[in-house]
Amino acid sequence: MRIDVEQDIMEINNAYAADNRQLFKNSGIFTINIMGSPGAGKTSLLERTLHLMQNQLKIGVIEGDLATAMDAKRIASIGISVVQINTDGGCHLDAKMINRVLPGFYMNALDLLIIENVGNLVCPAAFDLGEDLRIVVMSVTEGGDKPNKYPNAFLRADVVVLNKIDILEASGMDLEETKKDILRINPRARIFETSCRMGEVCGVEQLAEYLVELTLEKKKHTLP
Amino acid sequence: MRIDVEQDIMEINNAYAADNRQLFKNSGIFTINIMGSPGAGKTSLLERTLHLMQNQLKIGVIEGDLATAMDAKRIASIGISVVQINTDGGCHLDAKMINRVLPGFYMNALDLLIIENVGNLVCPAAFDLGEDLRIVVMSVTEGGDKPNKYPNAFLRADVVVLNKIDILEASGMDLEETKKDILRINPRARIFETSCRMGEVCGVEQLAEYLVELTLEKKKHTLP
Repeated sequence: MRIDVEQDIMEINNAYAADNRQLFKNSGIFTINIMGSPGAGKTSLLERTLHLMQNQLKIGVIEGDLATAMDAKRIASIGISVVQINTDGGCHLDAKMINRVLPGFYMNALDLLIIENVGNLVCPAAFDLGEDLRIVVMSVTEGGDKPNKYPNAFLRADVVVLNKIDILEASGMDLEETKKDILRINPRARIFETSCRMGEVCGVEQLAEYLVELTLEKKKHTLP
Repeated sequence: MRIDVEQDIMEINNAYAADNRQLFKNSGIFTINIMGSPGAGKTSLLERTLHLMQNQLKIGVIEGDLATAMDAKRIASIGISVVQINTDGGCHLDAKMINRVLPGFYMNALDLLIIENVGNLVCPAAFDLGEDLRIVVMSVTEGGDKPNKYPNAFLRADVVVLNKIDILEASGMDLEETKKDILRINPRARIFETSCRMGEVCGVEQLAEYLVELTLEKKKHTLP
């Protein structure tokens, strides 16, 4: 009986995700779902990436958190439209939550919508939000065994960001072995190494360039 | 309807938790539920603490993971009885899972049972396993905003361990502010600062002493 209930939840979610996907397609919006553990550095990475992309694209952000609007305030302070969803203890965003807040954006004026999921390497991976691209952010301080221990998130990721590489040495993680593990789980994952505290050469530029490229590519194909 | 289902799940869980609690009481076993994000350092902390306690107490460990027996192997290698539960993608341990594996231990020969939950700062907090003590482990590299952003885990913790203090400086976290935030959410939380990579003075001794003390205290009150 419990399995039936879970299937119902997934069926409902998939219906909303399909609806979202159609709305994004109609407006030519490229949509990204960012997930990772608490403290992986998702919001900092988002801030840095937004800063590099905001002159080229019109961007909206949805912030998912159990409580507080701390992350939404950080994003709003750099001049980006942002909607905060508080799940009130809920462990993931689902497609219906996204569907409900979309009227908060001028959809036709957006090129890119970025959704930062609740900090959790497990549950968000099971819920399709209608996104085009799924990014898993993992801090090197979490340790190199994490891809094997939490395979579902990595299995369904398009992009894996290994963040906080400025403290790689202190973390003791074997970067090359971890990258091999990720690619063994998911050979199509594109891996970026980033730091949000370093100056120029920090990997965030490459990530931002890649996301701009994908966004413009979708726009080209979906607008008249 | 979804709320009804959640209540059913919680009712079932609470019934198993009460059953577990009675079993632990009958055998005079002190039980600890350890939770925290992936990479908080739960297993390393457990290894160090077990090493300090295993001459004084008879200890069993239950390891919860989505996949792999990596953590159970680490614990078994130091000579501790361990049972691995794989949740096959499930985001938390529940009381029924614990109940089912208890026959794997000689209950009357145990003083202390330690359960390491699935790496997740959200879902495990909602599920009582029948434990006496709940420990939340947080790495300083996760950032000081985490207690406010994930309040449920901290609200229900008896002990909060701030781990990886050997890289506190590199992490940039304000330790005193974070401790204030934790105590504002949960004034009865007992906070330990630990490192699993430092030599003698690393906080793990104080934690181990405290756990031994609590275990012997329960034994004194429950055995004839």
